[in-house]
Amino acid sequence: MPRIAEVRAPAEPSSPEQRARHLRILRAAARMGAEKGLERVQMHEVAKEAGVAIATLYRYFPSKTHLFTAVMAEQVDRFEESLPQPKPGTAPEDAVADVLVLASRQLLSRPALAIAMLQSANSANAAAVAGTGRIDRTFRQIVLRTLGIREPTVMDVTLIRLLMQCWHGVLQSSLNGLSSVPDTESDIRIACRLLLAPRSNAARRSDA
Amino acid sequence: MPRIAEVRAPAEPSSPEQRARHLRILRAAARMGAEKGLERVQMHEVAKEAGVAIATLYRYFPSKTHLFTAVMAEQVDRFEESLPQPKPGTAPEDAVADVLVLASRQLLSRPALAIAMLQSANSANAAAVAGTGRIDRTFRQIVLRTLGIREPTVMDVTLIRLLMQCWHGVLQSSLNGLSSVPDTESDIRIACRLLLAPRSNAARRSDA
Repeated sequence: MPRIAEVRAPAEPSSPEQRARHLRILRAAARMGAEKGLERVQMHEVAKEAGVAIATLYRYFPSKTHLFTAVMAEQVDRFEESLPQPKPGTAPEDAVADVLVLASRQLLSRPALAIAMLQSANSANAAAVAGTGRIDRTFRQIVLRTLGIREPTVMDVTLIRLLMQCWHGVLQSSLNGLSSVPDTESDIRIACRLLLAPRSNAARRSDA
Repeated sequence: MPRIAEVRAPAEPSSPEQRARHLRILRAAARMGAEKGLERVQMHEVAKEAGVAIATLYRYFPSKTHLFTAVMAEQVDRFEESLPQPKPGTAPEDAVADVLVLASRQLLSRPALAIAMLQSANSANAAAVAGTGRIDRTFRQIVLRTLGIREPTVMDVTLIRLLMQCWHGVLQSSLNGLSSVPDTESDIRIACRLLLAPRSNAARRSDA
């Protein structure tokens, strides 16, 4: 059985004031995570920095895992909103690689925050932490849109899931000092070409 | 810059007595990790269970990250020693998938320990934690031997690294309750076929 990280269901913001407070918390957590890393971030300091009561912070985010999974979900959402159009003439799998290289550069520019988000999202249990599913869904939308697939097959969804898992691993290696930036980017490009090869809108081979 | 987990260099066992004590520590940590999970394992309890002084434990393993990365390295070594021969007539990439499915079943049978090992290995910095590089090297040997490749190209090494990263991600999803056991195994098989397709000893396509 997977472990259950937390028993209590976190609150969701509903009014505009609540949403603004929620976003202030996420921004404060991102700043402090980038500066200090997951272990040294204190919940009471995040509350202070965001100008909210500690009880408010815990109502939305019962743990640092919840908090930094939500920070990641919010950053993935913002990334999706600012997504550039693929350059004309780029093969779809190379366009996906361009997007992932861009996202990787943004993530690796704040390594302590990247580690905090990836560790939290990795250890978050799907049932207990809301952001987990949202990150995966937004990632899938980004890849499908870049590939130009409107009606994904089951195989498309599987390939994109594998690509996300592989990408997380590549980022983790880079963050751990196991691979250089050029190697990281080259690994991402190879993973996109290989894992997206059987996608539903791939050009058919003449011998198929 | 990647973070440096620990400054102090851990000791390495050299005499037979030291190696026996080292192994006793790893076995005790594995038992306790399987039972309690990473967060609830206490270093002093591991020392007690292994029958060593707490100072001895810390000399070999300055942190739980070092300890559970070493537990993983030891388990990967034992897995390599017991590696079955591929069934005759199995395609090389399917033989690798069989090996990874077997390893996954063993890992997923003790989920709390699997989470402890993967989290530790993921957060271990290559420069500071010795087990990290060893896990990767042994994994590479296992895959190369199963593929029947004696002289790997740079591309072979890259493909195997991507496969390991992808496999870790698939395991993590399974451990987080994001994918079922049949989905996990099917994902592993697809990843092996796609990521190992351009390996150096792959059958050449007639149209290539």
